[in-house]
Amino acid sequence: MGEADAPMEDGNPTRMWNFKPSEATETAGRLTIREILNKVMSVIDSGDPRPVIPLGHGDPSAFPCFRTTPIAEQAVVTAVKSAMYNSYCPEFGILPARRAVAEYLNSDLPDKLSPDDVFLTCGSQQAIEILITAFAQPHANILLPTPGYSFYDARAAYCGLEARHFNLLPGQNWEVDLDAVEALADDNTIAMVIINPGNPCGNVYTYQHLAKIAEAAKKLGILVIADEVYSHLTFGGNPFVPMGTFGSIVPVISLGSISKRWVVPGWRMGWFVIIDPHGVLKSSKIIDSIKGVQSMLSRPSSFIQGALPHIFENTEEDFFSRTIETLKITADICYNRMKEIKCISCPSKPEGSMFAMVKLNFSLLEDITDDMDFCLKLAKEESVVIFPGTPIGCKGWLRVTFAVEPSSLEDGLDRLKSFCHRHQKVNEIEELLV
Amino acid sequence: MGEADAPMEDGNPTRMWNFKPSEATETAGRLTIREILNKVMSVIDSGDPRPVIPLGHGDPSAFPCFRTTPIAEQAVVTAVKSAMYNSYCPEFGILPARRAVAEYLNSDLPDKLSPDDVFLTCGSQQAIEILITAFAQPHANILLPTPGYSFYDARAAYCGLEARHFNLLPGQNWEVDLDAVEALADDNTIAMVIINPGNPCGNVYTYQHLAKIAEAAKKLGILVIADEVYSHLTFGGNPFVPMGTFGSIVPVISLGSISKRWVVPGWRMGWFVIIDPHGVLKSSKIIDSIKGVQSMLSRPSSFIQGALPHIFENTEEDFFSRTIETLKITADICYNRMKEIKCISCPSKPEGSMFAMVKLNFSLLEDITDDMDFCLKLAKEESVVIFPGTPIGCKGWLRVTFAVEPSSLEDGLDRLKSFCHRHQKVNEIEELLV
Repeated sequence: MGEADAPMEDGNPTRMWNFKPSEATETAGRLTIREILNKVMSVIDSGDPRPVIPLGHGDPSAFPCFRTTPIAEQAVVTAVKSAMYNSYCPEFGILPARRAVAEYLNSDLPDKLSPDDVFLTCGSQQAIEILITAFAQPHANILLPTPGYSFYDARAAYCGLEARHFNLLPGQNWEVDLDAVEALADDNTIAMVIINPGNPCGNVYTYQHLAKIAEAAKKLGILVIADEVYSHLTFGGNPFVPMGTFGSIVPVISLGSISKRWVVPGWRMGWFVIIDPHGVLKSSKIIDSIKGVQSMLSRPSSFIQGALPHIFENTEEDFFSRTIETLKITADICYNRMKEIKCISCPSKPEGSMFAMVKLNFSLLEDITDDMDFCLKLAKEESVVIFPGTPIGCKGWLRVTFAVEPSSLEDGLDRLKSFCHRHQKVNEIEELLV
Repeated sequence: MGEADAPMEDGNPTRMWNFKPSEATETAGRLTIREILNKVMSVIDSGDPRPVIPLGHGDPSAFPCFRTTPIAEQAVVTAVKSAMYNSYCPEFGILPARRAVAEYLNSDLPDKLSPDDVFLTCGSQQAIEILITAFAQPHANILLPTPGYSFYDARAAYCGLEARHFNLLPGQNWEVDLDAVEALADDNTIAMVIINPGNPCGNVYTYQHLAKIAEAAKKLGILVIADEVYSHLTFGGNPFVPMGTFGSIVPVISLGSISKRWVVPGWRMGWFVIIDPHGVLKSSKIIDSIKGVQSMLSRPSSFIQGALPHIFENTEEDFFSRTIETLKITADICYNRMKEIKCISCPSKPEGSMFAMVKLNFSLLEDITDDMDFCLKLAKEESVVIFPGTPIGCKGWLRVTFAVEPSSLEDGLDRLKSFCHRHQKVNEIEELLV
């Protein structure tokens, strides 16, 4: 109590107090997408009369063409008014909601889930939090895709779980580099993460590729965490195939939510499910570890859980097909307009999710040092927000979302084109003029 | 990859996989109130035709007399239908909601809060999670009250933050034993926690006692975490005084939520606020640490945040006074009926929150080994659920909530009385018959 015993002035902020920040927590937040976006947003010129075009994150809910269905809104309203969902909810979510998630997923799965296989979470971000925390132990590691979703990295860094990265192959429609996976894994590897439909690549894996992933994971003795937050949001040649299809080959934990398909990320209603017909995870007791973590965290609002069965049952097919149609249109706009911009290339047309990865050609650009510099200058000069590739392991790339109102997307891509033209090397411009 | 290379049978659950559970997470859940309650509930005789009387946890929302106000329900309904709150929300909550919390608290505070001092959380449980996580660092410790709220202990154990316990004094209306606080604190003590109105003691601290706590904390160089989740739920001689009243003496972090006063714990809308007019915490950078933790966690559902300003503004005084009146009635029933039971004593009449602590007199009981044994047998024989004292550091005590429908409370206390009578030592019963 040495410091406290020293004489001190009242109200002097330089007085010594015991509390100090924890370094781990102080820096952990810096890896999140939000932090990067905040940085990019901060340079926007508030004097620019044009609207900001947000091509940086996957939340189209503010755009009229992506408004959620009144069915979902009404389900929540009914649940709130019923007064049946004001209480604390059970540990892993209320039973009808867990049953509804099981039934929702079972229509696509060979091995049927029971409500006990379902854990409800505050969005799928909390599912990631729970899983990474449960798997974190000394010397353990997890295999993550590059490019991927940086919250996995942030959470692993925070929990002290070593992250090892395998590449997705842009020339092969962003398939997993399975040789890299095999080279990275060792006896301390617990799991590999796949994100399908792909965030941020906009790809959709074939049945055949998913089967190969399952066999590779089985060989390595690791489970597959399948981030299927964008499930059913596909609009190309490949239909969505759930990783759980291969649950009898390898234990799968699938993450999902209503955030994307119903366009309500603010509602915070997600889940993860254990697809493990042979009971491998149960016999390893890792389920106890997962339950231990979940028991210390908040559940989603009870009335959203109460609304969930009605949302699943009653949402009209027309709402889904309209969303898909809009995404198809915007993906087309994005891909075709990008092709017109010389210093940018998109290896493949997005077929799912809300994102595309595009590569910058620096040999055609002057006064742009890297992808972050590109994004900062673009935001400053054109009020267009795009997410740089470096924070997700793709130096020299950009992550672009096309899930915005088509007119805003056209506007944003026009501005991107002007920006690129303005920053093109002089001899390149002359060439264009010839 | 030795294990993975070994030949193996398809689908054999005994096959070796890499994943193992983490011991920390597997055991952490065991300390929560929910786990203990689950254990007590599990022995209830499903053949008992009588309803289960839940005197174990502070959630009266299912009882008609504690139904929340239609004003709050309508505020959520309006927010959902507006479609203005479907998006991801900003890192620390939406600005109007943070401003509303600041204004709600400012009416009782000398130093006014700004929205920047407010952090919105999924119930106050997430506030505890964030604070304990942000304060956890090697060698640090935190001072917790006994009896108290065991989630502080569970979370501290999980994060590796040492918890040291000071007693609340039953003979002095559960005031903090400040000598014990001073003896426990050292240079590594970061904070002390007080819960006012008291969970689980039902006490309400006076202005004078809170002032003494502030001076003691200042002397020790530690901040005060004031768990004020039951704020304004007082019905005795002492009015609720926020700890933030003393923010100019010692930095205070106050926790609150709408869970208790509006009786909607399932809605998961809470907050913590920094009351620190001299900027002590800011200059220590611990705010950055807190922000780092919060940035990795989910926020409350956007539309509940959207509803919050309307809930604060429009809730009628009549709703609050009815709730208080009901709590006063049930606290009276509880205290007076307990006095009729010989083997139980309640040191003081509850004046706030929803709980009372009562002491068992084992010298009058036979075939009851301890408080947990008492609760298990009571649940089994009478379908009455009470929380044992041992898990909250009070061996030989019980934590009873009186916040249930008065008729259910009478029924539960009747059964408790029969139970106690049945388990009383024979000579004691004979004495009663004389």
